[in-house]
This record gives sequence, structure tokens and C-alpha cells, in this order.
Amino acid sequence: MFEKILDNVKAKTPLVHSITNYVTVNDCANILLACGGSPIMADDEKEVEDITSICNATVINIGTLNEKTVRAMIKAGKKANELSHVVVLDPVGAGASALRTETTFELLDNIKFSVIRGNISEIKTLARGRGTTKGVDADVRDAVTEDNLEEAISFAKKMSKKTGAVIAITGAIDLVADSNKAYVIRNGHPLMSKITGSGCMLTEVIAAYCAANPENLLDATAAAVCAMGLCGETAYNKMVENKGGTSTFRTYLIDAMSRMNAETLREGIKIESR
Amino acid sequence: MFEKILDNVKAKTPLVHSITNYVTVNDCANILLACGGSPIMADDEKEVEDITSICNATVINIGTLNEKTVRAMIKAGKKANELSHVVVLDPVGAGASALRTETTFELLDNIKFSVIRGNISEIKTLARGRGTTKGVDADVRDAVTEDNLEEAISFAKKMSKKTGAVIAITGAIDLVADSNKAYVIRNGHPLMSKITGSGCMLTEVIAAYCAANPENLLDATAAAVCAMGLCGETAYNKMVENKGGTSTFRTYLIDAMSRMNAETLREGIKIESR
Amino acid sequence: MFEKILDNVKAKTPLVHSITNYVTVNDCANILLACGGSPIMADDEKEVEDITSICNATVINIGTLNEKTVRAMIKAGKKANELSHVVVLDPVGAGASALRTETTFELLDNIKFSVIRGNISEIKTLARGRGTTKGVDADVRDAVTEDNLEEAISFAKKMSKKTGAVIAITGAIDLVADSNKAYVIRNGHPLMSKITGSGCMLTEVIAAYCAANPENLLDATAAAVCAMGLCGETAYNKMVENKGGTSTFRTYLIDAMSRMNAETLREGIKIESR
Repeated sequence: MFEKILDNVKAKTPLVHSITNYVTVNDCANILLACGGSPIMADDEKEVEDITSICNATVINIGTLNEKTVRAMIKAGKKANELSHVVVLDPVGAGASALRTETTFELLDNIKFSVIRGNISEIKTLARGRGTTKGVDADVRDAVTEDNLEEAISFAKKMSKKTGAVIAITGAIDLVADSNKAYVIRNGHPLMSKITGSGCMLTEVIAAYCAANPENLLDATAAAVCAMGLCGETAYNKMVENKGGTSTFRTYLIDAMSRMNAETLREGIKIESR
Repeated sequence: MFEKILDNVKAKTPLVHSITNYVTVNDCANILLACGGSPIMADDEKEVEDITSICNATVINIGTLNEKTVRAMIKAGKKANELSHVVVLDPVGAGASALRTETTFELLDNIKFSVIRGNISEIKTLARGRGTTKGVDADVRDAVTEDNLEEAISFAKKMSKKTGAVIAITGAIDLVADSNKAYVIRNGHPLMSKITGSGCMLTEVIAAYCAANPENLLDATAAAVCAMGLCGETAYNKMVENKGGTSTFRTYLIDAMSRMNAETLREGIKIESR
Repeated sequence: MFEKILDNVKAKTPLVHSITNYVTVNDCANILLACGGSPIMADDEKEVEDITSICNATVINIGTLNEKTVRAMIKAGKKANELSHVVVLDPVGAGASALRTETTFELLDNIKFSVIRGNISEIKTLARGRGTTKGVDADVRDAVTEDNLEEAISFAKKMSKKTGAVIAITGAIDLVADSNKAYVIRNGHPLMSKITGSGCMLTEVIAAYCAANPENLLDATAAAVCAMGLCGETAYNKMVENKGGTSTFRTYLIDAMSRMNAETLREGIKIESR
């Protein structure tokens, strides 16, 4: 169902400006190239507006925050809004520290995001509001499961209405929602949580897919989530076949994205709309 | 002999806060996940205490120092001490510049470390004291060999007594010592020095192992050193089999850690106590 | 023809100080080790002179600029000049933002570079001078092709005369020139542009090769460009054989460098002098 979305990415080679963390930045750049986009990383205040201006989308990822990059994020996001570019937020660790929670709200106050992608714990921090922090234990309690699926879908739609952004909540079950419609996606593999960067990489793919399909952010985001999940499945199978471990899995994950096409996606997709 | 130590890591999934360098940070995060731990990287002063508080151990690695992260390191280390968390120091390049040497001593003055891991040249800089620098040539002259082993063991024990930390001196022969007892470990492969990050990754594994076994830091550190060395051997053999080079070796090294278990370790360990 | 150059690298293990970007820094360190060199990354103003002093060459790469690292770059470059070390500039994205363009000129004003490596678009920014920026579209229009080869060679020689540096312009066809002589190199594979860091890695290899062969910077640079291109070809073939994608390609690229020797280079080199 998402053939056109993938074709547009290949045709347009969207250029994505990312202000992201130094842990997974190399993976982010490589997955962007693998999925048919092109990366530029730049986080100095003095150049982020120039860089955003020549790009098609902007990613803001708070994985390794510091004071200076926050100012750069806001400048880049405002410029992207001015130019009606796609802007994607990855609130990594929102809730884990006061700084991350506060920064997330500062970003939401200043920038209109096209898509927000996080795990359920991070998105719940957005719902709880300023001044809330919690331990990481919350992550386990907060998983989206078949049991709480209805409630989670309704939560995702509500958060989309509140923020004006497409909301992607990823985990064992992935949800992609705007205020009216949600997709439930069951692609992916648990091993994706045993490498760093699965989430950050997905955020980049979402930005590339949305930049090439700005008229349909919900479907573009869902297609990216399906594609990434399917890459996880492909990578896992190939890893087992080659008796590899988690680093081989990471290599095969990016490999799979570089080989993804409309046919592979159509055959492997596990999605329903709600 | 270290079965229980590995079992504890798998059972507890220790969360490790690392303030580390941007060269090998991705490898550090991936090896932590591979060995059964979980990573958080955060280095802004404003959040390090929050992050340390929700973690089980803290790693301080001075590989790419800058003024701001030093202040963050001290805050994180002090908070970790307050909470009686495991704190591991990796004094990368101590002795190579005045900044690194001075910073190492500033960290030692402010933080009580559970374990310090470095090569012999870095640990000797700790022994020589403030204000000493030297060229990198010293590295070669300073190797631990069968010829100077007794002397090196005695040096490691003395350094442990002086710092109150378990000392891990890694190289062709690895030493792990507290003030009373030392392990001599002969696992590992020379190719580990032909990729960046072998040392940084080991430091992370030590932190995870110690966090899960806080009652026995000496054995937990030795187990981590053995496990990493054994992974190097496994990776080398698989690399040769697949006619690969150093990057394949790096992939297989992390793979091996993700497949390590008590049985593999028991069969492959090359350790003696002195 | 470059056997002696490679032999010197293996014999001398040149230590390279890099002030580079956080996107590809890990690849830079690993390719340095793979090619027979040794890496140190340090970018704090307070230590760059110490670090440069114990190294054999310095790389300055502006891929993720910020205010503080610019000051460190200038200090390191000046110290390297003082010590007559090889200094290599990689003006990543010069022309894409005012900051990058201005910084490039600030570096050129303060430091005498041995080699400057960039794509044609970046090197043209150097020719156009201060205050010029442009969109990334320029990259496509500016490719070196068989049709504009004469003109491009003459441009490269002129830029070498102007800057006093060997100029390496890399793309589908690579040019390496001083003011009198140019090499045209046709090694390489298009997939090299589908991973991040091909250019940054090449810059590091150039630094290692030049540091070990300071009496012949033109040939050392050309040898590095040939070696890297040949590694791309080798990696592509092995990737196809193993049905891999771009991440496997990246692994095999670094692998190939770690297995490169004079014989492989002699057999695979595609070079002519003009």
C-alpha cells in the first residue's frame, strides 16, 4: 500500500538536516543514505539556519543534549517552520532527567513538529507535562501490549490532536496516529532493542519519507515504521543464518534498508488501521 | 570460575551512565547492550546527576576531554559516590597532554573510583603524579611482558592500595589487582589494538559486570577482562575463516560478547592468580 | 608505482592527530589503524598543541564545526606548521553555510596546508573566495567528467599554486595535483557515496601516507586516493558476492584497507599523469 511513498523517496533523494546525539549519529547518517535520502549534520547556532534552508527536512533528537545545541535546535526548527519543511522530534530520554523533560517542552513551545517519534514512556512524559521525571523502570510498565492497545491508540490520537504532529509510538507493537486515524504495526524484532540507535535511525527514515511525501505525513510515517521493522526481521533471519551476534544484526539492518523496495515492503508489511 | 558473575549481569541488566569520548561512544553503547547491560550517555552538567541517579554504575572516560565535560564528570562521579554506585575511570591518554594528566588527578581528588582501567603507560602516569607528560613512545617501552611480570604485579597492587580502586592494566598480558591479590590474564588477540575502542569497550563491560556484582569488584573486573579477551580470540578466528579484515573483526568482537555465556567463558579463560 | 610509499607507512606507523566531525570520527580512527597509521583525536584548545607535538601529522575536518573547535583547529595547525608536520584540510560542506565558508578561509589564512582534499564543489568554494554560499544542488552540476577533465585539471593545478597545497578533488574521477603535475585516478565505486565518511576516511589515509612520505606529498596523496578507490572496488565485489547492502560495504571497505599492500595496489591502480 505504500509503494508510491517509497518511489517518491527514491525520486527525490530528500536532504535531511539532523541535530542529533553523538552516540548514534553515524548510524543515522548511514540509514538516511540507505533509505534513499541524504544527510547533513550541523549543530552550531551560527550555521543551522543556513543548513536547514538548503535541506528538505529537519530532525531534532535530544539524545545527548547540551545547552548550546538546544539553542541551535530552536533556531533550526523555527527556520524549518518558516519554510514549511517537515520537522521531526525524537525526545530521547524525555522523563529521565529534568533537563530532557524541560527541553522537550521548550522545543514544543517554539517549534511546530510534523512528527514526534518516541517510546511510550517518552510520549507519556509529553502528556504529563513540565516538571515530571521518573526512573527508567517506567519503561517496562508502560509497554504497549495487546491488552492495553485500545487505550494506547486513543492516547496516541489525543497526543496528536494536542501537538498537531503525527505521533509514532514504537516498541514491540508500533502505533502511528494522527487525531483521526491510527495504524497498528506489528513488524520488527526484539533484537532491535539490543543495539543502540534503532529508534534514532527510524526517526531519520521517517524524516526522509515525510520530506518526499509532505502531503501525507501519516502514511509516510507508517511506511517508514513498517520498513524499519521489516528490516529488523530480515536482519534477524540473516544473522541467524550466518551465526552472528548483535553487531552483525546492526550491519544487516542497515543493509536491509539499502535493499528495501516497494515489493519487499508490500510482501512483508504487518499493518492494520484503527 | 566466573559463572555467577555472568549470571548476575544477565539477571540484573545493569544500567550504565557513561561520560565518554565521541570516537568510540557508539561501540561503547553496543558492547554494553551485547554484554547484558544497558547504556545511557549524558554529559551536560545540568542532567548528569539525574541520569546517574537512575543508573547502576557510572563510567568516566577522558578520551576526548573538554572543559565542560570535566565539570560534568566530577558532578556525576560525586553523585555516584553518594549513592554508593560503581564508578569506573578510563584515563585515556593520561600522560599524552598536560590537560589529560591534570584532569585525571582532578578526577582522582574528587571521586572515589571502584575500578581504574588503562594501559600500563596511563597507569604509570597516575603513579608519577601531577605535572608529568611524555611522548607516546613510552607506550612501547612500558609493555607488561613475562620478563617484568613480577614487578608489574607489585606495581598494580601498590596502585590499588594508593587509589582504593581495583586496577586493570590491559595489554598483551592483562593484570587485574586489588591491594592483596592479582590476576594475570592471557586472553586476547593483538588485532584488538588494530581497531579503535577495544579499551573503551572493555571499560564499559567492567562497569556492567561490577554493577551486577558490587560485592566482588576484583572478580567482576577480572571476569570482564577475560570475557573481552576471549571475544577477541573468537572474533579473530571467525575473521580468518571469512577472509575479513579489521572492520569485520570489530563486528565479530561485539557479536562474540552478545553470545558470551558462562560455559564459553569457563572453557576459554586463561587466568592465574598471584 | 607506489610500493615505497606503502612500505614507509607500514614501517613508520604515523601517528595522526585529527580534529574532525563526530559523524564519521569512528570510521576515521579505524581506517587510520587499517592503513597502518595510528589515531589520536583531541579538540580542546588546552591540549591540541601538546597532542599535535607528539604526532606526525594533523587533520582538520570541518564536518561538524563549532566555535570552540575552530579555535582548537587554528592552534593545532599553527603548532603543526611550526614543527613542519604534514597538515591536511578537509573543508566538508564549504559553501553550504556562511560559517563553513568563512571558517575555511580563516583556516587558510592561519595555517599552511600540505594537502587539501574535497569534492569539486568544496574546492570551487575555495576558488570563489569569502562570502560565497550556494545550495547543495551545485554538487551535481560541478562533477568532474571526461568532458570537462582538461579544465578541471587546470583548475586543480591553479588551486595548488594559489594555496601551496597538494589539491585532491575526489568524485567519480579523482584528481590529485600540485602546481606542475596532476594525476587522474579512475579507481573507486559509486557506492562509496552511499555510505557516510568515504571522503573523511580518505583524508585520514592521505595524512598517514603523507606523514610517512613527507618528501613526496603529491605521490603520497595520489597513492592514498588510489588505495581508497581500490578498496571501494574490492568492497563492492565482496558485498555483491555476499548479497549485502551498504553497511556490509562499509565494513568491507575498511577491511580492504587493512589488507592493502603494495602488490594489490600495483595490480589494481588506474592512474595517469597529466
